[in-house]
Parts: sequence; C-alpha cells; structure tokens
Amino acid sequence: MRTTPAGVSPIIPLDRASGVPLHKQIYDGYCSAILLGALRPGQQITSSRAFAAELRVSRFPVLNAYAQLLAEGYFESRTGAGTFVSASLPEQLMSVPRTATVPAGAPSGPRPVARRAFLVPSFSPSTTLPGWGAFGVHQPAFDQFPFPIWSSLVAKHSHSPQANAIHHVDPQGSLRFRQEIAAYLRTARGVKCDPGQIMVVSGSQQALDITARVLFDPGNRVWVEEPGYPLERSVLTAAGCELCPVPVDHEGMEVEAGMERYRKARAAFVTPSHQYPLGSTMSASRRLQLLNWAQSSGAWIIEDDYDSEYRFESQPVASLQGLDANSRVIYIGTFSKVLFASLRIGYIVIPPDLVDRFVALRFAMDIFPPYLYQEVLTDFMRMGHFGRHIRRMRRLYGERRNKLVNCLKEEFGNSIELHGAEAGMHLAITFPNGIRDREIVARAAQERLWLWALSPSYMSEKVREGFILGFGSTPTEQISRAVSRLRALVMA
Amino acid sequence: MRTTPAGVSPIIPLDRASGVPLHKQIYDGYCSAILLGALRPGQQITSSRAFAAELRVSRFPVLNAYAQLLAEGYFESRTGAGTFVSASLPEQLMSVPRTATVPAGAPSGPRPVARRAFLVPSFSPSTTLPGWGAFGVHQPAFDQFPFPIWSSLVAKHSHSPQANAIHHVDPQGSLRFRQEIAAYLRTARGVKCDPGQIMVVSGSQQALDITARVLFDPGNRVWVEEPGYPLERSVLTAAGCELCPVPVDHEGMEVEAGMERYRKARAAFVTPSHQYPLGSTMSASRRLQLLNWAQSSGAWIIEDDYDSEYRFESQPVASLQGLDANSRVIYIGTFSKVLFASLRIGYIVIPPDLVDRFVALRFAMDIFPPYLYQEVLTDFMRMGHFGRHIRRMRRLYGERRNKLVNCLKEEFGNSIELHGAEAGMHLAITFPNGIRDREIVARAAQERLWLWALSPSYMSEKVREGFILGFGSTPTEQISRAVSRLRALVMA
Repeated sequence: MRTTPAGVSPIIPLDRASGVPLHKQIYDGYCSAILLGALRPGQQITSSRAFAAELRVSRFPVLNAYAQLLAEGYFESRTGAGTFVSASLPEQLMSVPRTATVPAGAPSGPRPVARRAFLVPSFSPSTTLPGWGAFGVHQPAFDQFPFPIWSSLVAKHSHSPQANAIHHVDPQGSLRFRQEIAAYLRTARGVKCDPGQIMVVSGSQQALDITARVLFDPGNRVWVEEPGYPLERSVLTAAGCELCPVPVDHEGMEVEAGMERYRKARAAFVTPSHQYPLGSTMSASRRLQLLNWAQSSGAWIIEDDYDSEYRFESQPVASLQGLDANSRVIYIGTFSKVLFASLRIGYIVIPPDLVDRFVALRFAMDIFPPYLYQEVLTDFMRMGHFGRHIRRMRRLYGERRNKLVNCLKEEFGNSIELHGAEAGMHLAITFPNGIRDREIVARAAQERLWLWALSPSYMSEKVREGFILGFGSTPTEQISRAVSRLRALVMA
Repeated sequence: MRTTPAGVSPIIPLDRASGVPLHKQIYDGYCSAILLGALRPGQQITSSRAFAAELRVSRFPVLNAYAQLLAEGYFESRTGAGTFVSASLPEQLMSVPRTATVPAGAPSGPRPVARRAFLVPSFSPSTTLPGWGAFGVHQPAFDQFPFPIWSSLVAKHSHSPQANAIHHVDPQGSLRFRQEIAAYLRTARGVKCDPGQIMVVSGSQQALDITARVLFDPGNRVWVEEPGYPLERSVLTAAGCELCPVPVDHEGMEVEAGMERYRKARAAFVTPSHQYPLGSTMSASRRLQLLNWAQSSGAWIIEDDYDSEYRFESQPVASLQGLDANSRVIYIGTFSKVLFASLRIGYIVIPPDLVDRFVALRFAMDIFPPYLYQEVLTDFMRMGHFGRHIRRMRRLYGERRNKLVNCLKEEFGNSIELHGAEAGMHLAITFPNGIRDREIVARAAQERLWLWALSPSYMSEKVREGFILGFGSTPTEQISRAVSRLRALVMA
C-alpha cells in the first residue's frame, strides 16, 4: 500500500486559458483561502505532490507557489511533520479587510420560520447536568461502572470490520439486542413483549418524540403528571399537544381528578414505578383505574419506566404494561440511568398493531440506530454483567440513600417533608414554609452542589418549593458534609 | 470487591400473611413466570443466595424451591455456570393453556392514531441496502477502511472513564469535533461557517427532519428535485409539506421551471454537487438563479452535500452555501458515505440567526448526540487520517468508475444513456426504449446484484426507466462480470 499524505486541500479554480501562470494562480488561491479564513493558522497543508495530482498539473508550479508562500511567511514547515499555515501570520497580511465575502451580520429580507418551532423553549445549559458534584440528578455512580469489561467489549466489536458492516438496515435496531431487551423486560419488569415489539432509540427523549408523532395530532389533549418531567412536556408541546396537568399524591397520578377535568384525552403520560419528581409508586387500584379509563375512552398510556431498577424497601413492582390486557400501553425505558447517559440508548415496547407506524416514522426520522453499542450491550447482557451491575448498584444506592435520609432528618428535622426515597436515584424534599428554591439552586451551584429546584416541575402557578436531590453519584462519605452545606445555604 | 452474581430476577410477590409456605410461593412464582413466558428456556436464574437477599427471606425456602424446580425439570444446573431454565422443558408443562394472561390477539375498542402518522409510507426492507454485492448504492469500499487505526482510537476513548463522563450536555455536539468539521468544510468545501453554527446529528436524515420541523408548518410548499431522493421526500411529507417536483437536467434543478410553476414556496431542496440520482453538477448560473430566487421570495435552500468528496474529471466545486451572501442556505453533510453508514454521524451548518431554534428543537427531540464516535472522529481528523482516506478512496473510486463506464459502453453500446459519472459513488443509466426496471431489480437481487431501479425516484407518472449503479463497494476486477450479468438480465 502506498502511503497517502494527510491534509485537506482547498478549492483553487485553475484557468489554463488565462494569461496568469499556474504557479501564480496557485499562490493567489492559497493567499485568499488564508485571508478569507477557509484555511486557518496552524492547519496542515496538502503535500505538493498530492496537490499537484489533485489539480492535474505537474509538480513544478505547485513547488514554486509553496516556496513563495513559505518565503512570505504564509506557510511554515515543520521537520518530519509537513507544511502548515503559519501559526502566527504577519500582521500586515491579517489586516486586509475581510468583509468583502464574509456573510453579512444582519441578513436581509423575510426569513419565515415554522410557527411550531416556537412551541419549544430555548435551550439553556443550566437546565441540564451542569457538572459532577453532590446531588446530581440522573447521575449514576460512574466510578463504579465496570469499564475494563466494557472497553474490552467495545474493542472487540470495533476491531472487526464484519461487525460494522451491518447491511441489514433495521429501523427497530439489531434483532439480537432486542431479544436481550425483551428477555430482561419480561423477567425483571413483568413486561409482556416479544422482540418484534421493541424499537431501539437514542434514549427516552427520542422514544417520547416518536410516540408523540405517531399518536398525536396538533390539538390532542394529553394528561401529564403535576409536578412532572419538564423535558417530557417540551416534546409533547413540540408535537402540538394540549397538556392537561393532573395532580399526583402518594399513590401516583390522581386518575379521578383527570377524569373529572379532562375526560376526553388522547393519552396519559405516567411514571408509575417512581414518579418524577416526587417519587411515589402508583398504587394497584390507581393502575387499574387508569387502565380502565384508557380502555373505556379509547386513550393510550405512555409509561416511562426511567429508573425502575432500584427499589430499596420492597420488591420491584411490575410494570403497568404487564397489567394491561388491551395493548394500550407504550412502554419506554433507557440504559442511561443504569449505565451512563452519553451511551444514548433506550427502547420502546410498542403495541403490536402500532409497530408498522412507529417503524415508518422512525425510518423517515433517522433511519436506524448506531450499531456499535448495540453489539456491546448485547454481550454485556448475555454475559451477565448487566444483571450483576444492577445488583451491585442497588446495594450501593441503598447505602447512599440511607445516609442521605438520615442526614436530612438530622439537619432539617421537621422543617422539611421527604418524598420518594423508596426507589430510584433521587428523592425530593419540600419546605412547608416555602423557600425560594431557584435562587438557592443558583447559589448552590457555585459551591458545586448540583441540586435541582422543584418548582420548575410544575406547570401551574400553585407550586411546592423544594429540591430534587440525586444520590447516585454522591459518595456515601461526602453526603453528610453536602447536607450541612445545603442547610447553610437554605438558612442563609 | 465482593463478586456479584449474574442473572436477572423475576418479580415474585410474597405474601407472608397467607397460609402458603414461602418455598411454595417461590416455586409457584417461578412456575408461572416460565409458563407465561416471563422466563424463557435457557435463561440464567439468579443464584439462591442473591435471590434470597432480594426477597429479604432466609436462603432455605429459596433452596427448597430451587431443588423442587430442578427435580421437576423446570431448571437445570450447568457445572461452573449456574442454574438455568431448562432448554427443553417437559412437554406436559408447555401444553398448559397460555391464553389466560397473554395479550389478546385482536385488541378491542377505539385505537386512534395521528392522521400525520399516515403521511409516511410503510417501511419495506427492500428499500434499503439489502446486502453487499456488486452495484450497492451508498456503499463505500468497506474493506479499504483503516480499521486498525480506527479501533485503536475507539479503544483509547472507551477505556477512559473521563472520556465518557461528559457532563456538559450540548445539543450541538462536542465543541472540539465541531471545530474540526468547520475547518474541514471551510477548506475542502468552501463553506462559510464557525463551530457555533454546526450541529452534530445522526446523519443527513435527522438533519432533514430537524430542518423541516424548524422551517416548515403543515401546508408549506417545498421544491424538490424530480427525480430525487425518496427518503428526503418522506421526511418532508412527514412534516406536512406539500412537495413541488421541479425537473432536473444536466445543469441540475431547472430553477426557471420551479419559478413558473411554484413561485411561492418556503424552500428548495437541492443536491448541487452531485444530483441524486442523475448525478449532474449544478451550473454556476443556476446556482446564482436559485440564490436570487430565495432572497427575493424569502425562501430557504437546503443543500444536501452527501457525496461531494469525490470528483473524477475536474476539481471539487465549492458548496452553494459558500456563494450565498444572505444566510439562506442550510448545509447538510454526512460521514456515512466516506466512512461507514452504521456510524450514524452527520452535521448541519445553520444560518446564525436560526441556531437558537435548531438547538431548542434538537434538545426536545433527543437531547444530544452520543459521545464516543465524536471523540474518535475528532482525533481521526486531527491526525490527518480523514484527509488521507478521502484521497485514497478518490483514486480507488476513480479506477472503479472508469472500469464501470468502459464495461457499460462495451456491453450496452448505444442502447443506454449514462448519467452523472463525473463524481460521487454511483452513476445512473437509462434505457431510451424503456425497460421494466423494478422487475429486473428484483431478479437481479436473487443473483446478488444490488442495483436500484431509477423509476421510484420520480414523483410523477412521467418517469425514465433505468438503474442506479453504485461502484464504491464493487472491486474493480468484479465489475466486468457484474456488467455482463446485468446485460443478460436486461436482455432476458
């Protein structure tokens, strides 16, 4: 194999019919590429040999032009590495006015954008995980993840060209992976499913987006939990849905309140295993009530089972989907909470008669999911690492939770109420006397306490103030100090 | 570290108040999990010790139940590996009627689905890459990809927990990666951009989906090329757009025809570097005409630059985006064609004033792109491997293209017309006398010739019949034989 040089070539249009010699045209082409910013200081230049071949000219004019560019300081050569645009260009070169072909700052003329594009709020970085620190919500114990095993599987699957040479494009994802997911969900979550009902997606957010686009037309009403998960609300409003907030109590969504206020709705969105953010588990009677409502009114239920793997005081509660005799539940899960979020892998369990529409839409949206991590996770599950990791984390998070609950009781006593500490990776505290939760969160972030304010989880004006506290990524021995600092902030 | 056992536990609700002994409840729980399919033959069972801990009971009732399940043949133990559900269960067990709690085949009651969900056609596997073989469209020379370099980068980035511990969730993708993409596009494609305008997406399909959702409301008209790319059409129809087919000739989209027929349109979708599927390069005068139309009528241009890396008879042509002085072009590119499709990485270059809406929508759709391959590609580009691979492939594809063109001329002479062989990884042939292209494609697939029919690329009734022939993945020495087989099929 001949070695091929590095570097990317600029576009230099040569005109052989013009009177201008080729070396001058090449010189001019590089000068303007550098002056206009198409080539930036420090960028590597294609070798003269390779560039001559690309231009279909002899090497002489290219060498000639390069020599001049080197002499004038546009280029610099580094021994053994090649030729580069000078890291520090002569000042007089860079003072050439650059406005001529740079895009205008204020574009002119009508620039219409979709009305529906304004249904979603602007992104602000602070609404997501801003960093690692005590109380990070949705953050697993990253340092406990079995990286040696994981990366050996990644290496195995990225070494083999066959593994990447996927030629059966499947919008539902790899069949082997879906078989593993189905077996896990049937056993551990009591989900009734076959691999044919499963679709691999980039996380619960994409699951919600696809679901909303298949099930809802603009103007459809959807019950959402109040308080609830803000990102779920933005995806539903992006789909044009009318959100109907239904209050939750210690038994989960108050189904009767929903039926009184919004009997006609196309669907209900629920987190029955561990309500987000208040953490209640939906009671058996509410589950039956919700399923009956859905069946009698022709509605769908979207069950987001985002952190059901961890329960500390009782055995796991089976999914709502497993109770449903009428295929009215769309079940959504994710690997982000058990493994790590930058995986971007989740799944949907789709009622059999809806599979065709989910697949059609997914194909139009982004064709099929990336391949590598599906293969890696298939092995990770088959070899038992997944079950083992969950079991270890259940023990660890149980410890952290106990510590957090005890510290909160010691520091705050009766001045707070505790919610949803029986399961998952977060709990919530509310302050019956009220506090300014958003302000405290902003101050806490400066001290690397990453608690989340509770009040933004409400749609209506009537909010409870408090905090959502993650304990997944906070080492047990740091919890006591973190709670003291939290108390100091609240009292300040 | 204590070792943690493998296996996933079923949900068995224990009732300590009932008269039924615990071991009998556990036994019954496993029996019904197996009979109802929650546990499948061959699946691993949690160890008695771990399961007792989860149930919060002593180990004796669990051991007792397991012994009975082993004795009756529900379980089998494999030395050193653990306990499993029997791979072959006794027949009388499996003949138990299973209908009771299995979901009903025909669900009852109203099951309303969104009207818009029916805007997209059903997925049929044959519309995508069905396998590897001569003429595969969109398939690169997979065996030429530098896998040793690639997988060493993958291993490097998946070994380090830090690398995965991304905590700044960025809906646009990693900044380092966007810097590399911007430098590449400025230099090689003449795109005017900064990293702040770039969004990393899962491929050109997701790029189109996001773009359509930001720019178009239902009922908006969009010019599309006729013939054109079917998947681009489905994403636009999914967004509720009215498609306006504008014919293409050897200079690309016939802008005047578009202006006559549909002067009021919200946007034009074009593939100016290498029109899909006919392969023409849009001429300079058409480019200016299109940009002028967009500016004067307040429309957008979506430029899909899907395989611009390869030109064989002339130098690269700069992007349409680079010519645009009014920020009216949304530029879309992908790594699928240069590297491999299962990567699922592409990008959008967004006009600065639209970045906020693109980011808001992407955050609502799927939050942020997966991390690993962004890091790997950043290194791959910085180290020059990317430029080098493109240069090698340009030489290789040039060879394959020459061979294909010569063989086609030899075998078919004047009975075909050849289109778009100057660039890219495919060309098209049409038969002036007409043929039944779809039928021939179906027969060809049985012989592992993966040509695509041309006629489905047309929206209207007035189609040209012929084939789209990929040459990226077809070894030069196999081309002659493949063309002979194609001729035999056409003549049959």
